[in-house]
Amino acid sequence: MNRDAIAQAAQRFAGDGRGFVRRTPLWQLPGAALGVDCAQVWLKLEHLQVGGSFKARGMYNRLLSNPIPDGGVIVASGGNAGIATAAAAQALGVRCEVFVPTVSSPAKQAKLRELGAQVVVTGAAYAEALEACVARQREAGALMTHAYDQPEVVAGAGTLAMEIEEQGGRCPDTTLVSVGGGGLIAGIAAWFEARSRVVALEPELAPTLFRAREAGEPVDVSVGGVAADALGAKRIGAIAWDVSQRHVPQAPLLPDAAIRQAQLALWKDFQLAVEPAAALGLAALRTGAYRPARDETVALVICGANVDPATLA
Amino acid sequence: MNRDAIAQAAQRFAGDGRGFVRRTPLWQLPGAALGVDCAQVWLKLEHLQVGGSFKARGMYNRLLSNPIPDGGVIVASGGNAGIATAAAAQALGVRCEVFVPTVSSPAKQAKLRELGAQVVVTGAAYAEALEACVARQREAGALMTHAYDQPEVVAGAGTLAMEIEEQGGRCPDTTLVSVGGGGLIAGIAAWFEARSRVVALEPELAPTLFRAREAGEPVDVSVGGVAADALGAKRIGAIAWDVSQRHVPQAPLLPDAAIRQAQLALWKDFQLAVEPAAALGLAALRTGAYRPARDETVALVICGANVDPATLA
Repeated sequence: MNRDAIAQAAQRFAGDGRGFVRRTPLWQLPGAALGVDCAQVWLKLEHLQVGGSFKARGMYNRLLSNPIPDGGVIVASGGNAGIATAAAAQALGVRCEVFVPTVSSPAKQAKLRELGAQVVVTGAAYAEALEACVARQREAGALMTHAYDQPEVVAGAGTLAMEIEEQGGRCPDTTLVSVGGGGLIAGIAAWFEARSRVVALEPELAPTLFRAREAGEPVDVSVGGVAADALGAKRIGAIAWDVSQRHVPQAPLLPDAAIRQAQLALWKDFQLAVEPAAALGLAALRTGAYRPARDETVALVICGANVDPATLA
Repeated sequence: MNRDAIAQAAQRFAGDGRGFVRRTPLWQLPGAALGVDCAQVWLKLEHLQVGGSFKARGMYNRLLSNPIPDGGVIVASGGNAGIATAAAAQALGVRCEVFVPTVSSPAKQAKLRELGAQVVVTGAAYAEALEACVARQREAGALMTHAYDQPEVVAGAGTLAMEIEEQGGRCPDTTLVSVGGGGLIAGIAAWFEARSRVVALEPELAPTLFRAREAGEPVDVSVGGVAADALGAKRIGAIAWDVSQRHVPQAPLLPDAAIRQAQLALWKDFQLAVEPAAALGLAALRTGAYRPARDETVALVICGANVDPATLA
């Protein structure tokens, strides 16, 4: 994973003509506006991406980079990765099957169907849905997308960091990124390399990178808590493990209460309707889990919007 | 009202040091991303302004432009103008009284109190609250803010157009603006003059400018419908009437159903939680009330966020 792969993904998006991947706004504010004692805070409003999360970048790059078989596209996910795959397939006019476990919410299944996907509900937990998905893929020969651990998916996510640099006119001193399986941070750290201090943020209840560092290698962890819907991967991806070992020195954990409080503040004080996973950056600044210097510019990646608005009241 | 007054307001904001007024993002998208057959659509995300609407610009400029008496600041409003005045007064550390009618919602009253305002609930309708407010102003000598018809308030709103020009690198060909009392469009049209085609958009059920044009002068109208909360002024302001006669050639009306549909689309497809008043621009493009040329760049002012999220589901 390197900057060339990311620049190629950006060229694919620009040359595609459909305008499927959106260039999301970078909101540059003085730190004081967020109650943070630093020069500037940049909010990359990636929750405004098509499908409501950064995942559209990776999935679309995966689909544009490979021939799509007659069997179409296939994915196991009840969350943002499934929505992004379905939206990307719809944009390209190809078939899409999404495997979700029986615990997935009827609202998310309806959203997938609205995007033209064929939804297969199977298995009590995600692992069983994935197993069925893999079996079906072998049989149908469809192109499978993975939520975070494929090179095209990581390179697509990296285009977000490229945009931050273009829009801000420079790299931010620090970039705070939420980590689940690590596809987003892998792309961002691969783009910035040493040019921005990329900090990995995880919920205490979903510490895939933190535990991998303790163990010296990726390990399975049990996941839960307010952000599990988006950050609930069981293990850090191989690509993310590799890139983060080279380019991500810090990986603090955050308590659920601070994440939830930051999510509500983003709504109440900044009118941003986001999911808990998108609030870890503000939570890190407000709890002091990350303490910027006074002259520092810190970028926060507001990575997803898929929230039930009723939970914001 | 002219560009100098607007540039002075922008200087006041920049020189103030508190960073109270936010520079809100300009989201530049290909028209196709919104299903509109034009080159580009620029969304000025002013619903991210402090207090959730553009009103903060005008109220803060009014307060910075005048000595604040010991009696503080006073306003009659149960909506965005009251919230903006209270927030501006709080930022400057001065007293604020807000007069609201008994019909105003307990949620909005609570919001005003959270901002440190003293809330006076009086009168069955807005007119009576205003009357009590004026009487109190005479007695207490407080500085009164008007929701739309004071020069400092209009000049403050005009800074939004100045920002669009700076952020976009040029004036948009066309700018679509929602009109209630007209403070926003007066500021925007005074900034752009003939450099952008400024189009006034009103709900069929709150047609202050439309009826004024029919009558040849500002007249009282009855107001209602989905956007009455923000666009429910009874009469176009004198400043807005003057500026719009010179710089606003078109003023189409929009049905409530189209406004509501556009509001839901901004949430569902673009993750923007906005009030109905902020959706008139998209409604005009989708209904054809305004039809851009294929090579045109159209700016939409997303003017307010003060929506109960439960109504977006």
